[in-house]
Amino acid sequence: SQDAAGEEDPSIEDPWQDEEYFGNYGTLRLHLEMLSDKSRTEAYRQVILNNSASLSSKRVMDLGCGTGIISLFCVQLARPSMVYAVEASSMAEYTRQLVKQNGYDEVVTVLQGRAEEIELPEQVDVLVSEWMGNCLLFEFMVESVLLARDRWLRDGGTMWPSSAALTFVPCQADSYYAEKMAFWERPYGLDFTPLQPLAQQEFFTKPKFSHIIEPCDCLAAPCDVISLDMYTLQVGDLEEMKGQFHFCVEKSAVFHGFTAWFTVCFESLEAGGATHKKNSDAPFSLQANTLEADIVH
Amino acid sequence: SQDAAGEEDPSIEDPWQDEEYFGNYGTLRLHLEMLSDKSRTEAYRQVILNNSASLSSKRVMDLGCGTGIISLFCVQLARPSMVYAVEASSMAEYTRQLVKQNGYDEVVTVLQGRAEEIELPEQVDVLVSEWMGNCLLFEFMVESVLLARDRWLRDGGTMWPSSAALTFVPCQADSYYAEKMAFWERPYGLDFTPLQPLAQQEFFTKPKFSHIIEPCDCLAAPCDVISLDMYTLQVGDLEEMKGQFHFCVEKSAVFHGFTAWFTVCFESLEAGGATHKKNSDAPFSLQANTLEADIVH
Ligand SMILES: [Ca+2]
Ligand SMILES: [Ca+2]
Repeated sequence: SQDAAGEEDPSIEDPWQDEEYFGNYGTLRLHLEMLSDKSRTEAYRQVILNNSASLSSKRVMDLGCGTGIISLFCVQLARPSMVYAVEASSMAEYTRQLVKQNGYDEVVTVLQGRAEEIELPEQVDVLVSEWMGNCLLFEFMVESVLLARDRWLRDGGTMWPSSAALTFVPCQADSYYAEKMAFWERPYGLDFTPLQPLAQQEFFTKPKFSHIIEPCDCLAAPCDVISLDMYTLQVGDLEEMKGQFHFCVEKSAVFHGFTAWFTVCFESLEAGGATHKKNSDAPFSLQANTLEADIVH
Repeated sequence: SQDAAGEEDPSIEDPWQDEEYFGNYGTLRLHLEMLSDKSRTEAYRQVILNNSASLSSKRVMDLGCGTGIISLFCVQLARPSMVYAVEASSMAEYTRQLVKQNGYDEVVTVLQGRAEEIELPEQVDVLVSEWMGNCLLFEFMVESVLLARDRWLRDGGTMWPSSAALTFVPCQADSYYAEKMAFWERPYGLDFTPLQPLAQQEFFTKPKFSHIIEPCDCLAAPCDVISLDMYTLQVGDLEEMKGQFHFCVEKSAVFHGFTAWFTVCFESLEAGGATHKKNSDAPFSLQANTLEADIVH
């Protein structure tokens, strides 16, 4: 459900407003995005590398291109006929400079504007976008991707990613709980337990990002709660998403919340080619996003 | 100078406004303050322990007491006749609970209000406060301490801390510079140098907190730029502080900025006793605050 994915929870960390989102992306966020998300950038690089031959003479749109790294990969690793790098924020000016600096300005056209405003001279064969946010949908950018798809992707064109899934697993977070809650029991030989409700509110009622879980923290097998087909998904579908989930709890433990991550798939451009699957926020690794539910004692 | 200390620089991180400061302190900040500043808390604990005998039957005011940890230490480690724990934020309600929970409510009186508003039934022998912020003066709380001193500290009473100094040293930050700037030169085999000015603005025009420097990073001997005597300092003195500094650069290197830290001293309550000196943000350790100047190439 949408609530489970957290997009409408006002307590979620950093709920970027539209203006703030586009206004700040040029500075503060940018570096962090690129520096901390190397695995995501590397995944796109790999997809382009794997489809290098098939990208030849293709027209590509890179939506929400940021620095333009994906567009640059296209020209560096393949021979597309044209890449439209679309960026709404003022970052676009820097993207233009980067394209020129790398000598790619004959192939890459940078367009500053939103998906719903931009005008292209032609439709494209491939629409690539790194639209995924925390808990997959958090950045809300998927709507722009669908609008761009409906207007600018030719019939039979390719969406990258082609599909996406949000996976949940109920889990315990005993050591985190102990660290954040047990601390108040006897610091410096004093009783600080009256602050435990504050600590609980601070640390256990908001989603915790980049939480690391171990297989032994999971109380059941993970379950895909939402699956998106990027070819058939409609803007209207985004208004209310319902996902069924059913967990068979396999061990006795304190249920501290759900850990969520997502997986995206990239269809091969070659007929019959293998689909490249990317666990962008792999469980049991550094980047899992945890949605903490209320603590159950 | 005040500019050098950064308090009036609007680009400084997190310039708490009055309302925000007192409004949020009850939740978000609190935990960080206590959890991350164990060395500071431990310093106050040590001062109280060292003066345990002399604190007997003394009246103490703990200004801006937060959770009340210093007040609790007073009763846990010594026998003051009365402790007035003063806190302006809504944290005061929790402080009251903590005092009661530890059975100290006959000695500790929690007063919610600002230094300029509170009314005490008597003057005190000791005014203790953890008023120091980044670059010593950043939290602006020192003014409240002076107002409380002038009204509520008896003649001949003791100020804790008794004096404070802000120390600067010019330094290089080569590895940090390389990490944040050289990255853009050839990531993924692409030329990202057009982003270097953005990176420079992002990472080198704002103070960087908790920067670790090594002795070999210093280009000269450290120098006390501002020294405060907490007995004679006046509110008016805070409006414009001038500090002379003079460094004799001893090595050839790129000057990346100044590293700043502060030292506070606690006079012993015993006549002729040793002064307890605390490097709250010791150089060459984990907590040095760096004020980055513009990069000099
Ligand atoms: Ca993203
Ligand atoms: Ca402080």
